[in-house]
Amino acid sequence: MEINGVEIKDNYAEGFGIKVTRILVTAATKRLAKIAATEATGYGTSVIGCPAEAGIDCYVPPTETPDGRPGYVIMLCQGSKKQLDHELLERIGMCILTAPTTAAFNVLDDADEELKTGFKLKFFGDGFEDELEIDGRKMHSIPIMSGDFLVESTFGFKAGVAGGNFFILAENQMAGVMAAEAAVDAISAVEGVITPFPGGMVASGSKVGCNNYKFLNASTNEKMCVTLKDKVDSDIREDANGVFEIVIDGIDEESVRAAMKAGIEAACNVPGVLEIDAGNFGGNLGAYKINLQDLF
Amino acid sequence: MEINGVEIKDNYAEGFGIKVTRILVTAATKRLAKIAATEATGYGTSVIGCPAEAGIDCYVPPTETPDGRPGYVIMLCQGSKKQLDHELLERIGMCILTAPTTAAFNVLDDADEELKTGFKLKFFGDGFEDELEIDGRKMHSIPIMSGDFLVESTFGFKAGVAGGNFFILAENQMAGVMAAEAAVDAISAVEGVITPFPGGMVASGSKVGCNNYKFLNASTNEKMCVTLKDKVDSDIREDANGVFEIVIDGIDEESVRAAMKAGIEAACNVPGVLEIDAGNFGGNLGAYKINLQDLF
Amino acid sequence: MEINGVEIKDNYAEGFGIKVTRILVTAATKRLAKIAATEATGYGTSVIGCPAEAGIDCYVPPTETPDGRPGYVIMLCQGSKKQLDHELLERIGMCILTAPTTAAFNVLDDADEELKTGFKLKFFGDGFEDELEIDGRKMHSIPIMSGDFLVESTFGFKAGVAGGNFFILAENQMAGVMAAEAAVDAISAVEGVITPFPGGMVASGSKVGCNNYKFLNASTNEKMCVTLKDKVDSDIREDANGVFEIVIDGIDEESVRAAMKAGIEAACNVPGVLEIDAGNFGGNLGAYKINLQDLF
Amino acid sequence: MEINGVEIKDNYAEGFGIKVTRILVTAATKRLAKIAATEATGYGTSVIGCPAEAGIDCYVPPTETPDGRPGYVIMLCQGSKKQLDHELLERIGMCILTAPTTAAFNVLDDADEELKTGFKLKFFGDGFEDELEIDGRKMHSIPIMSGDFLVESTFGFKAGVAGGNFFILAENQMAGVMAAEAAVDAISAVEGVITPFPGGMVASGSKVGCNNYKFLNASTNEKMCVTLKDKVDSDIREDANGVFEIVIDGIDEESVRAAMKAGIEAACNVPGVLEIDAGNFGGNLGAYKINLQDLF
Repeated sequence: MEINGVEIKDNYAEGFGIKVTRILVTAATKRLAKIAATEATGYGTSVIGCPAEAGIDCYVPPTETPDGRPGYVIMLCQGSKKQLDHELLERIGMCILTAPTTAAFNVLDDADEELKTGFKLKFFGDGFEDELEIDGRKMHSIPIMSGDFLVESTFGFKAGVAGGNFFILAENQMAGVMAAEAAVDAISAVEGVITPFPGGMVASGSKVGCNNYKFLNASTNEKMCVTLKDKVDSDIREDANGVFEIVIDGIDEESVRAAMKAGIEAACNVPGVLEIDAGNFGGNLGAYKINLQDLF
Repeated sequence: MEINGVEIKDNYAEGFGIKVTRILVTAATKRLAKIAATEATGYGTSVIGCPAEAGIDCYVPPTETPDGRPGYVIMLCQGSKKQLDHELLERIGMCILTAPTTAAFNVLDDADEELKTGFKLKFFGDGFEDELEIDGRKMHSIPIMSGDFLVESTFGFKAGVAGGNFFILAENQMAGVMAAEAAVDAISAVEGVITPFPGGMVASGSKVGCNNYKFLNASTNEKMCVTLKDKVDSDIREDANGVFEIVIDGIDEESVRAAMKAGIEAACNVPGVLEIDAGNFGGNLGAYKINLQDLF
Repeated sequence: MEINGVEIKDNYAEGFGIKVTRILVTAATKRLAKIAATEATGYGTSVIGCPAEAGIDCYVPPTETPDGRPGYVIMLCQGSKKQLDHELLERIGMCILTAPTTAAFNVLDDADEELKTGFKLKFFGDGFEDELEIDGRKMHSIPIMSGDFLVESTFGFKAGVAGGNFFILAENQMAGVMAAEAAVDAISAVEGVITPFPGGMVASGSKVGCNNYKFLNASTNEKMCVTLKDKVDSDIREDANGVFEIVIDGIDEESVRAAMKAGIEAACNVPGVLEIDAGNFGGNLGAYKINLQDLF
Repeated sequence: MEINGVEIKDNYAEGFGIKVTRILVTAATKRLAKIAATEATGYGTSVIGCPAEAGIDCYVPPTETPDGRPGYVIMLCQGSKKQLDHELLERIGMCILTAPTTAAFNVLDDADEELKTGFKLKFFGDGFEDELEIDGRKMHSIPIMSGDFLVESTFGFKAGVAGGNFFILAENQMAGVMAAEAAVDAISAVEGVITPFPGGMVASGSKVGCNNYKFLNASTNEKMCVTLKDKVDSDIREDANGVFEIVIDGIDEESVRAAMKAGIEAACNVPGVLEIDAGNFGGNLGAYKINLQDLF
């Protein structure tokens, strides 16, 4: 199968279950909302080594937010409920509450369960906190130095999908970077998903285990390394010298599929892209199998 | 004392010892270096609730970096050597190694001790890693999907200073935000320091302990909350309705002092600023006492 | 009338007729499209001294553009058809054709007339140009150094509205800037309008004529200058020390009204804003009178 | 000659004389200064079709500006003194005076002549203007809506150099874009120069005259068009499919040479770059001939 002359491999992405939250961060201006959203979602590429997977889902204009101010929806994801609870508390408490003019709202539909993040944060008010309702939501108002921080009492989480992915194989590294950026641009218009890696793209790939160093659970996937093409039994075609992966977390499989489709179509519009492939672990580890060709 | 009509209080900032590192992140372009630096320094406002204090120190043009590419110096700070070691490993491994086209160099002068971050990361190469020298530095080359990730073998850390600070009291919240931004702009031209909070400024202040909820170690400092001015014995002057704090971490006291000076002068240039104050805990907790008026 | 405690004056904005165009600039990535759109709309605040009024209307994700790439809609406005023709030719030819990976499409609905911008630009191809159809549009393909530049053959213009406006009076300059930024954020979500001044806001106001220097047709409106409040019969209330104007050009009166409404509501959400007023010339110069209170 | 495996052709860039100005635009924050600088330098790629060549030279931190606020140095260039005078008046008057919180200073050393831009702008004050000295400079203070606009009385210009240039030939378009971006990053650290095209790079090249349409003075340089490689006697090597030009204007030949050197070295660091060439017109048109290989 080809799109715009780019080969779409008959392969599938293997996704995993993860618990996802969606938090709307509003502020006086779009720029201030972005600052808080960026701080709160940093150090959040993969739960393999980061305390959470995190990213900005979408921008919401002031006419569509509960407090009439511009905002960004961020997603925080974790496999463990306990760790998710901790991450919400700390990322909202340390990175949003401390940011200028912000408020935080729960914008996850159809939650499986609720975390009492706002309820816990209110005690920081030391008795001066208050309770109010905005747009039918129970909010806590916590006096801080520069004003009152408003935070919704509970934040829902639900079973979502992590690890939706596709690989972009390009003529060289720079065409790969640009195609990955184009893919991320397209995915950012799909609601309910994030691309948690830096700039939305992944420059490195892992395999399970490590042949040379037994103490490691994961190591570089040498079959997908462009500089090892001539040294190993490579999975990279001869003419490809730049490979990047797009990893997607979403609120459900449908969102992840929509993001993969939009991202792949965008990447195939970039000159120098040769092939789209997907990453999986033989299908034994993850609950979701998304075939690339089935997306179109 | 007054600067530009703004009162500088006769008060001091109380700073603490912290272990600091300085890492140069280079990439193919300035923008790609910024993406990696931002991801690696997120979720890093304060060790009270974040796993590290982190931020971007300065930009370095390609003519002045070891590999001739543009880069950003980031600083990662922690009180505990063990946790600092963990943070360097994960933030470089998960947020820089995974980012497009990056490399990481140690740029801390006069280190007290070394962390073997690059040495540990190299095992990810599963035997395909290599060693080389760049600019007299021992580097590891780790094959990843899109090329080779270069990382210096060791990263030094030294005893630095956390919690350098000053408060900006302004006529209203927006004048406070703008003055804080101007201060951060000025501080970003001082080498060897970061302002780890979102956008470089802090909207909330804490006191030690909590009067109403004994289970909390820290709570809002009600005496510095603008919306509580009429309800408590406030430390905020009558005409101030916007208060922001700038918190500074630096490689040494001299750098922190230079940053405080530059930041205060810049804030005093912004219309609507009334007073500069500083935060301390009575001098019993921190090793550094920096009097505001002594800076000028 | 009050919104959120801010007084909305019973006054009207006086708008003028202007000829407007809407051009979609696409590129390989969102960032590259923004670069071209920004260059093409610079030096375009007001036809009083600039060759055109110009700005970015909105972002269009790749799934909604004719060529499946991300793009920005820009608007170029002029009173004279001949000058508009010149501006389109030069701004597209010098600022978009020369920019990396771009294409330009006509996205104005219900045009009154057409300009043959693409048809004229094609001759730059020196016989190597070609013609093709994209999405039912007649396009010219012009070979340039880095590839082929695609441009629609004709660009429509229609009778639009310039000079939609409102004033934000705030406690101080910084609250005024932030409120203006919040207003611009809100207006940017309204399609069919631009705010052509720097950052979308105007720091200076003019009156017709000049009392002291007869050779000038326009001069500072001293009654609206915050630093002249005590020297002239000022129109600024005693407690206001920061005044900014938002000027809006749109494809029709309805769009301008929607933008004014969204912008005013957003500004009234910013602490330190006291009053919203509007600018007019007694109603004798412009064809459009938009009363502020009628918007709500 | 080769740099990093990239061929540096034995060819020269042909530069032209142009009149250059350097204007420091300061504002309350770095971001506000950038907004004004960007608006004032838009629509300024080449005097072939734009009213001026314009761009941002460098950022200046608040500690190094005359008014202690952050600023950007912009350069406005024109061949004609009369048109340069007009451009300074309108770009400062319409794009900087109207922008929030700005001031404008003359920062050209060794001027050949002076333009009375500030002196002319002061009449906008309608008698309320004032005169003051900052840092030994004669400034005019013009009351505007949001405060007082400060502008230096005169702005110098001098004989500078336009059209410094080099071509980047890359494996494909995307490697070319990234290499051009890296070159622009490097050049932005060289003082006294601008890269006036969108994003600092040029996607199209011209030749003098037009073979097919005699009414045109300039047309596409078909010998440098990647899509015409097989149709004409091309100057592009077989393996190159992406070509971008960097055009540099500077205050003198030395600055332009330094910029060319820094830009070429940076481009040669980007994977996928094959060759660096330069553009000239046989040496008969321009006064400056800068050989590429002589730079190293």
